[in-house]
Amino acid sequence: MLYEISEKAIQLENQGKKIIKFNLGDTDMPTPPEIVEAAYLAMKQGKTKYSSAAGEKKLREELASIHGVSVDNVVITAGSKWAIFSLMFLLLKKGENVVVPSPHWTSYELAARKVGAEPRFLKGDLESEWRIDVEKLVGLIDEKTRLIILNSPSNPTSKVVDEKTFGEIVQLAESRGVTVLSDEVYADISFVPAKSILDFGEDHILVNSFSKTFAMTGWRIGYAVVEEELAQRMIKLNQITTTCVPAFIQYGTLKGLESKRKIADDIREQFRLRADVAIKVLRKAGMKFARPDAPFYLFPKVEGLDSERFALDLLDRGVAVAPGTAFGDYREYFRIALTVGEEKVREGLETLCEALP
Amino acid sequence: MLYEISEKAIQLENQGKKIIKFNLGDTDMPTPPEIVEAAYLAMKQGKTKYSSAAGEKKLREELASIHGVSVDNVVITAGSKWAIFSLMFLLLKKGENVVVPSPHWTSYELAARKVGAEPRFLKGDLESEWRIDVEKLVGLIDEKTRLIILNSPSNPTSKVVDEKTFGEIVQLAESRGVTVLSDEVYADISFVPAKSILDFGEDHILVNSFSKTFAMTGWRIGYAVVEEELAQRMIKLNQITTTCVPAFIQYGTLKGLESKRKIADDIREQFRLRADVAIKVLRKAGMKFARPDAPFYLFPKVEGLDSERFALDLLDRGVAVAPGTAFGDYREYFRIALTVGEEKVREGLETLCEALP
Repeated sequence: MLYEISEKAIQLENQGKKIIKFNLGDTDMPTPPEIVEAAYLAMKQGKTKYSSAAGEKKLREELASIHGVSVDNVVITAGSKWAIFSLMFLLLKKGENVVVPSPHWTSYELAARKVGAEPRFLKGDLESEWRIDVEKLVGLIDEKTRLIILNSPSNPTSKVVDEKTFGEIVQLAESRGVTVLSDEVYADISFVPAKSILDFGEDHILVNSFSKTFAMTGWRIGYAVVEEELAQRMIKLNQITTTCVPAFIQYGTLKGLESKRKIADDIREQFRLRADVAIKVLRKAGMKFARPDAPFYLFPKVEGLDSERFALDLLDRGVAVAPGTAFGDYREYFRIALTVGEEKVREGLETLCEALP
Repeated sequence: MLYEISEKAIQLENQGKKIIKFNLGDTDMPTPPEIVEAAYLAMKQGKTKYSSAAGEKKLREELASIHGVSVDNVVITAGSKWAIFSLMFLLLKKGENVVVPSPHWTSYELAARKVGAEPRFLKGDLESEWRIDVEKLVGLIDEKTRLIILNSPSNPTSKVVDEKTFGEIVQLAESRGVTVLSDEVYADISFVPAKSILDFGEDHILVNSFSKTFAMTGWRIGYAVVEEELAQRMIKLNQITTTCVPAFIQYGTLKGLESKRKIADDIREQFRLRADVAIKVLRKAGMKFARPDAPFYLFPKVEGLDSERFALDLLDRGVAVAPGTAFGDYREYFRIALTVGEEKVREGLETLCEALP
């Protein structure tokens, strides 16, 4: 349903309609010009050929240094989504399962099913501010569990997993021989400090992306930090699928890393302003939601709402949101991605509040 | 072995060694500047966001018009390799098989095995100039055959499948309920006219790429022309894997299509000169090979050669070739990709001839 809304929104735009798109985690902020210029320079310098399926050496080295790992642990991927899909494809056999705290990013579920694995969801609740209940998590793990997926800060709740819970989950995984796949694509722009899986050792999997930190969603570049043997398997899979991320894109990204803190700080501050506006409008309308710890999302609840119908109807009023059902069993919820400026946030959310049944 | 040679060649270059790389189908010609400039302009115009998993509408429309199909039949993919892998992933069940005239591009074999299917090779022979023997092809097809892969012009032989044989294969496939996947990435720069699968109706699959026609190997953009329902399945798979090809890359490609004939003519002519030089040097050394109908490759035979050992030893002399074993059961053969200028072709092939055991 998430992707259907997205494609329909694009269709409406192609017909010339104006849509305020709260439906996708794709900010309106431009990719910083230094990244664009560096990519252009690299193109002109001929970085337009096949390159290593592992990624450009310089970029891998830089990321290895940032994360305190070896370059052999770093694999550049065509977006973090490709990292996640390829890891599931490589690690999950048919009939095995993956445990996912929910609400969860749609792609975890679709990718797991696509490779023949069973996604098992730990249903969360708004009342606890979406805290992961580790005791309940235990109950979902069996001998066919291969992965636990953590996503902190979370899409769609924007909540950060606290250090204690994170540690408990890692410990649980290790005691049961399960790998944690930690998707940390919002961590660098989080409002509050977010722990990384690498803070708990190197036996697990970090997946990250430049999409959110550098406003590079459409560039399709991410990476994984994994143990060396798995890195080799990912590289071999890249060789027969995506081949490589265009080298000029990697050089653009490398330029971004030079001023990573500044770029991330700017983006974070803009999202903080947007979140403040959104929180005010939604509170005024009496909606319930957890205060976001990070960009990009709010995940409000409206009692009795059919969010799929609501999302489709709302499109006709020029506002796109993602229905809660895209993130699990959350029909009364919807996800707002704060990907437009404060004024548009206000305008779009006021339209949304008026449209509520 | 192909990718091992490639990664080792990159390693040696990173150490500062000069390598004449005949090992990869990656020409030294730069991507035409109008494509680079159009991509840059698109970046600056903000075409850096998530875009449709089907591809940009304008590019799909242009390709639909070129091929005389509907826009709904065209799916833009992160390289033709991703198109092929995703089609195999979607169409082949474990235990099913795909029939591939050989020698064949390595990726067909690796991709088929990776999705749990059995690749069945129709061994060709140099004496017949690598003609596909349709009667022998029949013998490989059974009730578990889902695909026949055609690659005309061929990697690694650069031979074109003649119209009569092409038609017979399509007819055979249809009589047995098998789909032809026709990989035509070298067709636009072929020295001799090459038939397209679309000349035989729209029930099969065309895979194509801009890598060779526009010297865009590292940009990772290709496409498939398939029936609409399959197109939808490919788009859905893109949504949970590669997401989209960066829109600015698609706009660069669109610019290339405006002067497609001129760009392709230029590239074809350069390859013709290179092929002429290579043919002379190799003939002088007494090597046997079929005269190429198209860029990029020659696939010579040396009686008694262990091409894997030869390829590894040759790397130390600064020349990279692909051993014949990368393309099937062809240990006495190796593949030369004419991806450097005439002088380098001469220099590299003379070094190669000296190194022959």
